[in-house]
Amino acid sequence: MKRTASAHWNGNLKAGKGNLTTQSSTLNRTQYSFNDRFADGVGTNPEELMGAAHAGCFTMALSAALEQAGHTAKDLDTKATVDFDAASLTIKTITLDLTAAPIDGLDEAGFTTIAKAAKENCPVSKALAGVTITLNVKY
Amino acid sequence: MKRTASAHWNGNLKAGKGNLTTQSSTLNRTQYSFNDRFADGVGTNPEELMGAAHAGCFTMALSAALEQAGHTAKDLDTKATVDFDAASLTIKTITLDLTAAPIDGLDEAGFTTIAKAAKENCPVSKALAGVTITLNVKY
Repeated sequence: MKRTASAHWNGNLKAGKGNLTTQSSTLNRTQYSFNDRFADGVGTNPEELMGAAHAGCFTMALSAALEQAGHTAKDLDTKATVDFDAASLTIKTITLDLTAAPIDGLDEAGFTTIAKAAKENCPVSKALAGVTITLNVKY
Repeated sequence: MKRTASAHWNGNLKAGKGNLTTQSSTLNRTQYSFNDRFADGVGTNPEELMGAAHAGCFTMALSAALEQAGHTAKDLDTKATVDFDAASLTIKTITLDLTAAPIDGLDEAGFTTIAKAAKENCPVSKALAGVTITLNVKY
């Protein structure tokens, strides 16, 4: 299946203006700019959107993996921190910090094994082969 | 620099509910679900957010590369199409379709060379090492 999004830009890097739109209209000519990305602007930027994609994919994948193992996820909360080195223009690491409400009949070791597999197998993790991905689990 | 985003999920894959929040609050407990991702739901999904991150990164990188070559970008519009194979749960390809208004003193061949380099060098492209990325240019 195909999902689309669009970017518009006009002008040079620092003074230019951009906006982003997604197929669902969740983003709808949403502003992004040099300041939003490299300084203290308040708009969105590619790195936080990648973090949202990754946190969302991983957390949904974990719910599915728990279900396959005979469990139903309670609250799963994942924070993705995207570490972007502006000097080398490289996204070096993404850290996934997962906090999960305990599930009856599943101990911490069992949960962590399932979570680690979900981290490896989620589609966005596989796509992000150029990034070191770390998972921390609080259960 | 670090950019963050969070995902919340509760329940199993198909009946469970999730939401996404980014550091800038551009996404703010924004709904996502199985239907939004794999069926005809109207909410957002990881793939369109990845497309927005990639289109946004590439288009900003292109503006910077044009500037380095002594030019100022006019309108640049990039559509990213993320092809997600639901059977193998793999993001196979991302196609970037770029439409650019001609810039005085820069012919199509010169523009295309700069655009191809921006595609290779943009931070999100480098992170997405597991995906085949294709660029089409209309100038």
